[in-house]
Amino acid sequence: MSMTDPKTLIETLAWRYATKKFDSSKHIPSDVWKALEASLVQSPSSYGLQPYKFIVLTDPKIREKIRPASWNQAQVTDCSHYVVLTIHKDMGEEWVDKFLARTAEVRGTTLESLAGYKGYIMGDLVNGARSAVVNDWAARQAYIAFGTLMLAAAALGVDACPIEGMVPAQVDEILGLGAKGLTSIAACALGYRSADDKYATLPKVRFPVETLVEYR
Amino acid sequence: MSMTDPKTLIETLAWRYATKKFDSSKHIPSDVWKALEASLVQSPSSYGLQPYKFIVLTDPKIREKIRPASWNQAQVTDCSHYVVLTIHKDMGEEWVDKFLARTAEVRGTTLESLAGYKGYIMGDLVNGARSAVVNDWAARQAYIAFGTLMLAAAALGVDACPIEGMVPAQVDEILGLGAKGLTSIAACALGYRSADDKYATLPKVRFPVETLVEYR
Repeated sequence: MSMTDPKTLIETLAWRYATKKFDSSKHIPSDVWKALEASLVQSPSSYGLQPYKFIVLTDPKIREKIRPASWNQAQVTDCSHYVVLTIHKDMGEEWVDKFLARTAEVRGTTLESLAGYKGYIMGDLVNGARSAVVNDWAARQAYIAFGTLMLAAAALGVDACPIEGMVPAQVDEILGLGAKGLTSIAACALGYRSADDKYATLPKVRFPVETLVEYR
Repeated sequence: MSMTDPKTLIETLAWRYATKKFDSSKHIPSDVWKALEASLVQSPSSYGLQPYKFIVLTDPKIREKIRPASWNQAQVTDCSHYVVLTIHKDMGEEWVDKFLARTAEVRGTTLESLAGYKGYIMGDLVNGARSAVVNDWAARQAYIAFGTLMLAAAALGVDACPIEGMVPAQVDEILGLGAKGLTSIAACALGYRSADDKYATLPKVRFPVETLVEYR
């Protein structure tokens, strides 16, 4: 199967841009949103561990509070759906066990049969060399979902603006994430571009292909 | 415009999986590959800085060398195109200037008019608080491209396997990346699944939506 053809994909990639001005009167329809939610849920992650949670803000009141903690960017309040990407801080054995229980459930297998896999994960991320950078590892997994989400949005004609310009500690405080063991790392505004967003027509700045891609 | 509809996107997300066994006789056609190359080039990044380079390995001899440095995974040698994701280590003023020169070129503006923007980037990533974590920041940007690439592949009916199971220092050595100021962070095997890849039919393990997505 294939969803589209190369030419249409290239057009879609060119169509998307970091939308600075959203049309606040336009809301993402529920069937379109469900597909974007699926893009977050289905996004691949290392070992399949999904060490993240996506907080979707639709309530204008909460978004008014988040905006000053996000360099006062208008996208926070003007978009349709505002997704805060968070990770589970210091992922440990508890989360690994939760994932393995889910694996056993989905695949109809036993926890015993997954013991080797558990040892493998623990030796890498919880007790092993990468335990010192487990939050960076988790953030990278969330960024795979970030990329997945933005292309999924473009595929459905939904505009997006990736947002790193925020103060995570303030966002965590406002959303009460600390008590849940979560911390925010970035956000994505989703909705529809305003007809007069001047950024929509600016040529996209990308290095030449040779600067970005090398063949061997 | 929109490339597809919600239902087809959801089917595409379900279709993809981390392909463990590629059909080494199948090669990605050049028009399909060009669209995947575009997905890497067009992927969004913070400030648009694109602090990465994608090394695409098609030569079987190089891939034979990379395989032992990648937990001996068969995908390295059996896939059609093997993409090593690398970042520019310790991105500094030189790269920022290169980006601004490109911006001036593409948008037909002057470097002088971009001086404020340069100060802004420098104060954040080169001399500012995030300079200490600039490599983590760069890796996150590359992971946006990682997610973009994998969904783009699925959209075109191309299989993929994300690979973190590698020894970056060894991969860097084999590809001579150090001298270029690059370091590898992950890789992605792309091609077509073998008809007998048993992983293709295993139920995909994802947490329930409520565990991954929260609405406020």
